[in-house]
Formats: sequence, C-alpha cells, structure tokens
Amino acid sequence: MTTQKNYKKLEQLSKEIAISDSICHLLQWDQETYMPKAAVNYRALQCESITGYVHKLRTSSKFSKTLSALINIDSGEVFDSSLPAAQQAALREWRRDFIHDRKLPNAFVKKWTKTIAGSIPIWAEAKKHGNFKTFAPQLEKIVTLCKKKADLLGFKAHPYDALVDLFEPGMTVTTLTSLFDKLKLSLTTLLKKISSCEDVPYDFLEGDFSHQKQLAFSHLVLKTMGFSQEDSRLDLSTHPFCSGINPKDMRLTTRIHPSQLMFNILATIHEGGHGLYELGLPEEHYGTPLCQAISLGIHESQSLFWEKRIGKSHAFWHHFYPLLQKEFPEKLSSIYFDDFYRAVNRIHPSLIRIEADEIAYCLHVILRFEIEKGLIEGSVKVKDLPEIWNEKMRIYLGITPHSDTDGCLQDIHWSMGAIGYFPTYALGNLYSVQFFAAFEKAIPTWKQEAMEGNLSPILSWLRENIHRYGKEFSAEQLTKRITGRPLSEEPFIAYLENKYKAIYHF
Amino acid sequence: MTTQKNYKKLEQLSKEIAISDSICHLLQWDQETYMPKAAVNYRALQCESITGYVHKLRTSSKFSKTLSALINIDSGEVFDSSLPAAQQAALREWRRDFIHDRKLPNAFVKKWTKTIAGSIPIWAEAKKHGNFKTFAPQLEKIVTLCKKKADLLGFKAHPYDALVDLFEPGMTVTTLTSLFDKLKLSLTTLLKKISSCEDVPYDFLEGDFSHQKQLAFSHLVLKTMGFSQEDSRLDLSTHPFCSGINPKDMRLTTRIHPSQLMFNILATIHEGGHGLYELGLPEEHYGTPLCQAISLGIHESQSLFWEKRIGKSHAFWHHFYPLLQKEFPEKLSSIYFDDFYRAVNRIHPSLIRIEADEIAYCLHVILRFEIEKGLIEGSVKVKDLPEIWNEKMRIYLGITPHSDTDGCLQDIHWSMGAIGYFPTYALGNLYSVQFFAAFEKAIPTWKQEAMEGNLSPILSWLRENIHRYGKEFSAEQLTKRITGRPLSEEPFIAYLENKYKAIYHF
Repeated sequence: MTTQKNYKKLEQLSKEIAISDSICHLLQWDQETYMPKAAVNYRALQCESITGYVHKLRTSSKFSKTLSALINIDSGEVFDSSLPAAQQAALREWRRDFIHDRKLPNAFVKKWTKTIAGSIPIWAEAKKHGNFKTFAPQLEKIVTLCKKKADLLGFKAHPYDALVDLFEPGMTVTTLTSLFDKLKLSLTTLLKKISSCEDVPYDFLEGDFSHQKQLAFSHLVLKTMGFSQEDSRLDLSTHPFCSGINPKDMRLTTRIHPSQLMFNILATIHEGGHGLYELGLPEEHYGTPLCQAISLGIHESQSLFWEKRIGKSHAFWHHFYPLLQKEFPEKLSSIYFDDFYRAVNRIHPSLIRIEADEIAYCLHVILRFEIEKGLIEGSVKVKDLPEIWNEKMRIYLGITPHSDTDGCLQDIHWSMGAIGYFPTYALGNLYSVQFFAAFEKAIPTWKQEAMEGNLSPILSWLRENIHRYGKEFSAEQLTKRITGRPLSEEPFIAYLENKYKAIYHF
Repeated sequence: MTTQKNYKKLEQLSKEIAISDSICHLLQWDQETYMPKAAVNYRALQCESITGYVHKLRTSSKFSKTLSALINIDSGEVFDSSLPAAQQAALREWRRDFIHDRKLPNAFVKKWTKTIAGSIPIWAEAKKHGNFKTFAPQLEKIVTLCKKKADLLGFKAHPYDALVDLFEPGMTVTTLTSLFDKLKLSLTTLLKKISSCEDVPYDFLEGDFSHQKQLAFSHLVLKTMGFSQEDSRLDLSTHPFCSGINPKDMRLTTRIHPSQLMFNILATIHEGGHGLYELGLPEEHYGTPLCQAISLGIHESQSLFWEKRIGKSHAFWHHFYPLLQKEFPEKLSSIYFDDFYRAVNRIHPSLIRIEADEIAYCLHVILRFEIEKGLIEGSVKVKDLPEIWNEKMRIYLGITPHSDTDGCLQDIHWSMGAIGYFPTYALGNLYSVQFFAAFEKAIPTWKQEAMEGNLSPILSWLRENIHRYGKEFSAEQLTKRITGRPLSEEPFIAYLENKYKAIYHF
C-alpha cells in the first residue's frame, strides 16, 4: 500500500475512534446539564462501557498495524520523509497517543472511568454541605489511581511529570516550579501595591439581575463573538464548561448568579473562547491530530484571550456597555463608562478561582499545583488538605475560606481525576498575553472595530494563526512562531503592571 | 458451572449490553430535544458506532456460549427444568432475541442505523414544507431495507409478519387483518351514528394558552401520576415520546400548542403512561427480559390506559378541572364541568393521528397498516403514497389532508424504519380496554380516590398485575391471566358504544 493510502486508512480509523469518543463527551455534558440525579450510577456504567470500547479501538491491532506502517513506534522515525510536514507532525502525535494508550490496560481505563463517574456526585454533595470529610475517601481512591497512572505511563524526574504531560505535553515539575516561583513573587508584590490603593466602586455590579435578561445577554455576546445556534448551544450547569462534541456540535454552559452581574457574562465569554478554538480546528482533518487542540494550556489561552484580554477591555465594553445599561437601567443608567470599566477590572482577592481577578488568578492555580504535587509525591496527605489549603490562601491572598465549599471543594477537577490539569490555567494566562501582544501588533485596528461591535478581526486572527493548525505545531513551536520568543512570565507581569497602574494609579 | 452460576453470568453480560444499548436511547433523546441541527450527520455516525458495538456484544461467542449452556438454541429446550418459571421464561426470550440478532449481519445493522439517523431530518424537512417528494427517495431506501430485514429474519406467510413480530411477538398479518376488518366496520358505523348527532361545544379548549402555564400543568399531572424529578424529566420535542434510558432515568417529551389546550395535557399523560410502565419493571432484573416490556402493544396499553381511560374520565377531571380553571380562568371559569368533560371527549374525525378521538384513532392506524403491508408486499408504490393515503382518509374518516404535512408525512415512524409498529397502537387500545374492565372490577373505589386527587390505586394495580412481571408472560398469556379471555375487538366496541351513548344520546 502506498504511504498516502495508509495515511487515509489511519485517518478513517481515527475518525471512527473520534466518533465513539465523542459519545463520552455527550454523556458527560448530559450528566452536568439535564440528567436526573438518581441516574448517576447508571451513567457511571455507561461511561465505563463506552470508554472501554474506545480504548479497545485505540489499541487495536488494526490501528497499531496501520500506524506502524507509517512511523516507527519505538524510534519515532517517519518512514516516508517526503510526506508533507503537517502529516509528519500528525504521525508523531498519533504515535505519542498510541504509546500512552498502550501503557494503560483496558481494565485500568474502565476502572478509572467508573471511579470518576461515581466521584463527581460525591464531590458535589460534599461541596454542597461544605464537608470535605465525606469526599476524602473518594479523593484517596483518585490519588491512588493517579499514582498508578503515573507509574504505568512512566516518568524521569517526578511522577507528577507523567500526569501534567497528559494535559500539557512536555511540561515538567521543574519548569513549572521555576515559572511559578517567579510568578508568585511578582503577583503577591503587585497585589500588595494595589491593596494599599483606594478601592474602586463596584456595588452596581451586585444586586438582583433577572435570570432571563442575563441569559439573553449571554446569547447576544456569543452571537457577536461568532457563534451560530445552528451548531452550538448554551445551557446551565453548576460549573461552566465547554464540550465540543464534534465540529458541528458545540455545547457551552454557564451559571447565572442572580446577584452577580459579571459572573455569567465572563463565564460565557470564557467558554465561548474555548468553543471558538474547537470550531476553528479544520474539520476536514476530523479525528486526526490536525483537528485537535495542541494542549490544555493553549486551549486555555483561547478562553482567557477572549475573557480577560477582550472581555475586560475598553473596546469590548464600549460596544456592549450601552446594551447592558439598557437591560439593567435601574442599576447602570447612572454609572459612567469609566467607573464600569474599573469595576469590571477591580482587583480584589476572593475565595473562588473562577471568579478571581487577573492578578489573583494565577495564585489560585499555584496553590493547587503545590498541593497536587504534594499529594502525588506523598508529602501532602488527603486528610490534611483543608488545613493546607486555608494556610496557603492566607499567605498568598490574605483571606481564609468560610468553609470547604469555598475552599478545597470548590473545583470539580480532582473529583474528575484531573490532577495535573490546574497548571494549564496559569500557562494559558501566559500564552494568551504573549499572543495578545502579537495580535495587537498585527491588527492595530481591532479596537476600533470592536468598539463598533465587530469582533470578527479577532476571531480571524486566532483562526489564521492558531486554530487552523490543530496539532501541527507544539505549544512551544507555536509560541515561538507567533511571538518570536519562548513562554515566559515576564510579558504577563509587564501587562498587569501597565494595565493596573492606569486603573489604580500606584 | 451450576445453572444458577451460568444464569448469573448471562444476567451480567445482558446488563452490560443493556448499559451500552441505553447510550443509543440517550443519543436519540438528545437528537430530538437539544442537539444543534447541524450535528445531524455526526449523530448518525455516533448511532452507527454504538449500535454496531451493541450488536457485536449481543452476538458475541461469549454471550452465545453462556446462553447455550442454559437453553438449546435450536430447539428452545431449557436444560434445567428445575429453574423457576420466571427464569425459564427469561431464557426463552433471550433465545428469541439472540436468534433475531444472529440473523442480522453487523454490516446490515450499522447500515440500518446510519440510514435511519440520516432519514429523520429529511422527513422533518419534508414535513415542514409538506413536500412528500423530497422524502420519497429516502423512504424507498427504508422500504428496501425493511424488505431485506424481513428476508434476513425469515417468515412463513407474509414478509410483514417478520416485521410486526419485532414489535408484537407472534402477531401476524392474518390475525391483524381479521381483527382490523371487524374494527373498521364497527368504528365507521359508530362514527356515522355520532356524526348525525348534535356536536358538542368545544371552542373554550381553543385560544391562546400560556406556554409556561401549560408546562406547569403537565408537571403537576405527572407528579400526581407518580413521577419524581429525581429520576425523570419532561422536555419539549416535535413529536412527543418517552425514552426510558434506564430504571433511574426516564425522559418524557411533550409538544405545546399555544392554541390547543388539551394536546399537551393528553400527550403528557400518554407518555407518562409509557414512563410508569418502564419505571415499574423490576430493577433487580435490569438488562434481562424480566425487566423488559412485553411488547409495544402492551406498552401502548399502558399509555392509553392513562391517556384515554383515565385522562378522559369524569373522575380524573373532577380533581383536575378546578385546577385547570384556576390556570386559565378567562377561558374556563364560566364553563360547567359537564360541558368540559364532553368537549374533552368530543368525537370529531381529524387529520392527525395523535390528536384523534377514541373512535377515529384505530381507523388512522388501520389505514397505516394497510399501506405498510402494501409497501412490503409490493402492491403499493412509494410514489403513490400521498394519493392512497388521501383516498383512504376520505373513505374511513370522511376528510382529506390539506397537504402531506397533515397527511402521509405526519408521523416520524417510517423515517425511523419502524414499519410494523403502527398496528401496536390499535392493539394497545384493545388491551387497555380489557385491562381497564378488570381493573374497575378489582378496584371499584378508584373513582372516589381519583376524584380526591389520589391516582395511586391505579398505579398500584398496574404495577401489581402488569409491570412487575417484565416478560415473564407473553401478551397473550397476560391478557388471559388478567381478563380471563383472549384479545378481542368486542370489549373495545362495547366500551365505546356505552361511553358515547351517554355523551351523544344516540
């Protein structure tokens, strides 16, 4: 068989796998949106069944043989060096995934999925009652499974490396520690500077905001960002998320706080950023690495690009603020634009990560990274988690949770077994600031357009420079390609200092 | 291995199959409720994937071996005659299904599923525009697949027998023709009698009824019928349906006509009847025939029991009418109960089956049966369908569709490949009237309870006498057990004559 015929065959097999895998995503979306509560144990069995099936497909001898005809699984050598660079890159990614999959026995994968599906409701219940103790035994199981996973996958320096690599290929504890230590220092210093400045007024963003109007505003924002109801939808869930079922089926969720106007709007823009990335991947390569996100850090760079860089900008609100005022005149009609802008960008360390301001956000992440690393290496015990959490919150942000609900139980991630995931949120911030600088340089007219309600130059640039490549480039390659330098905390710190000097006059 | 150990193994395998199969149901539910339209082709691929997987599980050598250790697949002899009768009945049902599955090649099953998933939107579009021609080529494909299916499954007298047997085991064209010919004569005679009587006033059931209030009323009715939001939900879809994903996840849908008050209420009660049957099956036997509905005719007997026998009764509305008046006072406050009751039971042949009155309903079904039978045996051509449909409507009901939307495109069934399904709707009417007579004899106090808003004696009787047995008895056995006689059209006709004499005074 010729190389291209083999490649086509591999594409077809991968498409079949992607289709089956997408069923898992729908099961999870349904679980978080519409599934009756009592069905949770059956849902765990459904997820176990489909994940086991997908894993069998991914490690089948048919798949293995087809892949092995194109690339040496052991050495990574692509046999036909005349293949286009994108296809060679795809083969390397296929091989990487295959090696991962092969290392995890089917029984482990099914046990993992079943444990996770059963964990989420236990976490949700524990969070509801602020009682970490009822979640602790389940978290013990998850940590054990994660350690086992790290052992199965293998690692050089630290078992956490094997886990973070699943979300951010190539990332290590060493790099993260170096990056985060520098970030921690700069961010806490910046926070202290701002805390000594006069607070900005923000009370008009709190009150009683109609659920229906909030939801309608979210739909308007999504439409302006570039969404169509033909291939996407917005629903409600406890924890906002984005699930790209397939290139024609994008499911976003948000949460509506009756008393917090900005929460739903920013969550919608954030998930919208994720959704636009997925919708921008080239559908003609569906199922292959060329239609997959590079890493969760890059994924997060897209959501944060929209939420923090665009959704908190002057230009964005120049267009949307009058519309928001019209919806909520009793709260906003007498508020000047500048005051609104400063309130949206108010720096005020709070307990909840997803509601955090631009400066505190990464400190929330660093706290979680340090705890996760400790759990995996054994230096942190599950039972001590609330205490360690609260202590770190006090040191980094100067505040202490009222209960575990606002503390170590606030995020869904650990109940999903996603240990190693959190660092990508901070990385996303760094990537997005570097990308944003390149974007501003390339499209200096974006602000004018955005002020007139035209956000399409933003989406076009992201599609052109990031989305359309899928996994053709690694996160490192892409960053250098777009920004001319490797990932660094410096541009992020500089961006924050500039922006907040103008707001807080320090 | 002992018989009981083998039986347990078979139970476990069947449970795994049921879990995977339930994923299909969720995909279909999602497609009809929330899926973005553009995702339809990907949904077809997802359905194809999971159905192919389920079929593989159902025909696996593991399953076959386990079953063969308990029952002779060829002869149907249960090896251990000391097994409890229920388990022996379950083994016979397992064997029946296995023989069916084995006859259908995996490639055929996948092609079937993919064709169907692609057909539904084509039908929906054709229905929207009242243009049968755009659906005809797809229906040709479906008829061809159905004929192929009949050939693969095998039959003695008529290919349609193989198809109807999938929905109503043991039912044949011969039995149906005999039953339906008698029904047709009696029903058309009854209709003529009533058409010469004075019409009942009904205009207060038409107008402008708030969507929210209609939906809230449906939720109230479901709660009173015995539903809990813990394990069930109600959504909207073009065509109301009930999908029991698993014993803890019941999904009902309804459709809300802004101008027709009764449509949504009766559809909700109808689907609720289906849902209560599924929820009443013994969960401890989940996955096995002892936790499955006997047949679609029996399933329909449950929905019609609730919709027509209870939901159109004096007793039911004695409780609910004041509540309905309170919701819609502008239309109903001045309407006497007796006038409302007569309007709910108004006989008036109309174009749409699911809105049909108790007398016209079976004529709608008989028309479809005659056309289906013709399509399968080749005496009816797809292209002639609108003409034949309209001609039969004129003869049986005295009315003619305005367009194919109200005519041969009104039902989703053919687009789903469910040829052979319609007769079960008429059979359900016959079963339900016979069951209802037995119920009234056993629980003569039900009316008094229902008048006070207590419907639980109804559900208890259905659970005790029908639901809890799963497939332990065949439809024929169950009918004789409960009513002391085989299925017949006579009780149904007698019931209609009695009831409508009192309303129309003929």
